[in-house]
Amino acid sequence: MIEPRTLKGFRDFLPQQAKKRQYVIKILTKVFESYGFEPLETPVLEYEDILSGKYGEEGDKLMYRFTDNGDRSVAMRYDQTVPLARVVAQHQNSLVFPFKRYQIQNVWRAENTQKGRFREFIQCDIDTVGSQNELADAEILSLVAKAYSALGFSNFSIIINDRKIFAGFDTTAITIIDKLKKIGEEAVIKELKNIGVSQEQFNSVKNAQVPESLGKIQSLAYELGVDKKILQFDPTLARGLDYYTGLIFEVVCDDYPVGSLCGGGRYDKLIGMFSSQDIPAVGCAFGFDRTIEAMDALSLFPRGIYTTNVLVTVFSKDLMQDSVRLCAELREKNINAEMYLDLPAKMEKQLKYAHKKEIPYVILLGSDEIQNKTVTLKNMQTGEQKTISQEELTPELFI
Amino acid sequence: MIEPRTLKGFRDFLPQQAKKRQYVIKILTKVFESYGFEPLETPVLEYEDILSGKYGEEGDKLMYRFTDNGDRSVAMRYDQTVPLARVVAQHQNSLVFPFKRYQIQNVWRAENTQKGRFREFIQCDIDTVGSQNELADAEILSLVAKAYSALGFSNFSIIINDRKIFAGFDTTAITIIDKLKKIGEEAVIKELKNIGVSQEQFNSVKNAQVPESLGKIQSLAYELGVDKKILQFDPTLARGLDYYTGLIFEVVCDDYPVGSLCGGGRYDKLIGMFSSQDIPAVGCAFGFDRTIEAMDALSLFPRGIYTTNVLVTVFSKDLMQDSVRLCAELREKNINAEMYLDLPAKMEKQLKYAHKKEIPYVILLGSDEIQNKTVTLKNMQTGEQKTISQEELTPELFI
Repeated sequence: MIEPRTLKGFRDFLPQQAKKRQYVIKILTKVFESYGFEPLETPVLEYEDILSGKYGEEGDKLMYRFTDNGDRSVAMRYDQTVPLARVVAQHQNSLVFPFKRYQIQNVWRAENTQKGRFREFIQCDIDTVGSQNELADAEILSLVAKAYSALGFSNFSIIINDRKIFAGFDTTAITIIDKLKKIGEEAVIKELKNIGVSQEQFNSVKNAQVPESLGKIQSLAYELGVDKKILQFDPTLARGLDYYTGLIFEVVCDDYPVGSLCGGGRYDKLIGMFSSQDIPAVGCAFGFDRTIEAMDALSLFPRGIYTTNVLVTVFSKDLMQDSVRLCAELREKNINAEMYLDLPAKMEKQLKYAHKKEIPYVILLGSDEIQNKTVTLKNMQTGEQKTISQEELTPELFI
Repeated sequence: MIEPRTLKGFRDFLPQQAKKRQYVIKILTKVFESYGFEPLETPVLEYEDILSGKYGEEGDKLMYRFTDNGDRSVAMRYDQTVPLARVVAQHQNSLVFPFKRYQIQNVWRAENTQKGRFREFIQCDIDTVGSQNELADAEILSLVAKAYSALGFSNFSIIINDRKIFAGFDTTAITIIDKLKKIGEEAVIKELKNIGVSQEQFNSVKNAQVPESLGKIQSLAYELGVDKKILQFDPTLARGLDYYTGLIFEVVCDDYPVGSLCGGGRYDKLIGMFSSQDIPAVGCAFGFDRTIEAMDALSLFPRGIYTTNVLVTVFSKDLMQDSVRLCAELREKNINAEMYLDLPAKMEKQLKYAHKKEIPYVILLGSDEIQNKTVTLKNMQTGEQKTISQEELTPELFI
């Protein structure tokens, strides 16, 4: 027999974990849609030439690619920005601009799994394509603040900067400055010196004032309701990717200080890669796995994201029909109800099922209850039992 | 420049279409969860030996497979049943049985696109693993009926049969009987004769009575609230796949008679493929694309599944801040509000944006309105305009 197993770096998400993922997706999409962002889906497989060369040497190395049955060179989605650029060029006449879309799909990268990295993971992006106005930038910041609040984070900041502050610095220098928090100022200055960048040049960055355009973005973000404490200007924030052209930002959580939870910025030279002109864009990527990790660590998931409100047990074979009927009635009342299906089964087994599945309530329906049109309702957490009339079973009871 | 294009058989889903897909997924998952089904996610890539040989010669031919960077033979998800069987064997100690899961993910098949088939499409499955009780079968039927009602279908039936009716018939014969609706009775009888199956044998199927176990399932489904008209026994319903062992069923819609919208049944010999024993299971697959096609044809999507309730326009550069502030206030009140971001822009352009994006309302905010704390609210469908106080802007106004 073939051994049931998964590939290194790939994960099954069993219900407990899958429910958390869905919970986060649900909250995020609600926030995205409240700002007028709309969903976009692109295929997992693209022509290889659409993706190759777009992510540097590293990307070309880590990309999953192969020749399909029709001898076409194809590659698996590596990020969602290049497909977005393709969509914008290919469907420009069908899209409404500024094009505000969100995209929540898997990407594949043959990463080194020893570093705890996954080879299949969700990316969750929002982008506004086709506006250079600071309002578009401010809207993204406002949305990000609202999203992390909606997820339950209270102690987080959005570190902001303007990539123009690094005018005159090359990618190598920016990459060094980007390591400031990791390796400290002394090491950064030393590394910069090695490539011919002086301490004075570094200090000119470190002591830089808020540039005018970033100031406008800040004011608009405040008008959009962003708390002043949340936005923090840091002129040394660089962010690795060198395609940013204006605003850059990262979300950090003081209670879970493991890098950034979300990051983004303005990139006006990238989305036009399949078009004959530059197309301005601003957006961000939510670190999906890391956000869930943080929420787990900070206990931000509501206790037991159960889907079922109540298990209707079966007392005996003769009374099964009554339980079936009650279960149907509860569902009609918009109460998520289920029964233990591997019947016949002892009560103990049915209760164990409810316990394992974290179903918060159980209904016992014996002949007395049936005759009196009542149920015995057991709270699985406290163990408390009470007998109530069947009419009293309303959705509010299970909130 | 590289031509922006997609592979044959692969689709981009732009917002209008993506919103419909999300609408259907939202309604279906709500119904699934009301019955206690929970989400499961499995990887797109599996070890090739997990998938190969599981879908017959056809499957092995159509499967996307390749050698990854680590020289492993891998294959892309071809359906969700084999991965479910793998999960059940691999995680048997972490799962709660009966295991009721739903799974809504893409699968890939190198189909002939000339037949209008896609190479990447969503499968939407629910299955109950680990119960032989008829209640599990009845629950699936009840859920399916509820799902199609919730999607807005009124004129649909669930054709049911018991695969045991074909005891003594081989796969070839069953495949012929399965074509009854397509080619007619005469042709079926002729084809059956060619393989040595007599008309009497066919008639014994055609005139068969409801078997006892199917009768029980029917009664339980009625108790679970399924309308008697919806369940229709048809002893000649065969369904192609020969892995069914008991109940089989298909959903057909009289208003959109293009094959079945959903199908399933009991299959007690399949889920154990990676285990040392048989594991009973019953479930079904919703035909996602076809269901959306039917809903489109029958106009079952609510008019304009818009995400934005209202566009707040900007009257002039000086008044932009007021519009920004109002927009933020509306979002605080749980009204999905947005602004045209490619500012400065003429009013005409802003209205055109609202029109194209099917945003139902537009707010005009001039200096009079600002002074009087009012807005002019324009209904984009009727063209009607009225001036109301800003306090009157509540979510109910936009339903």
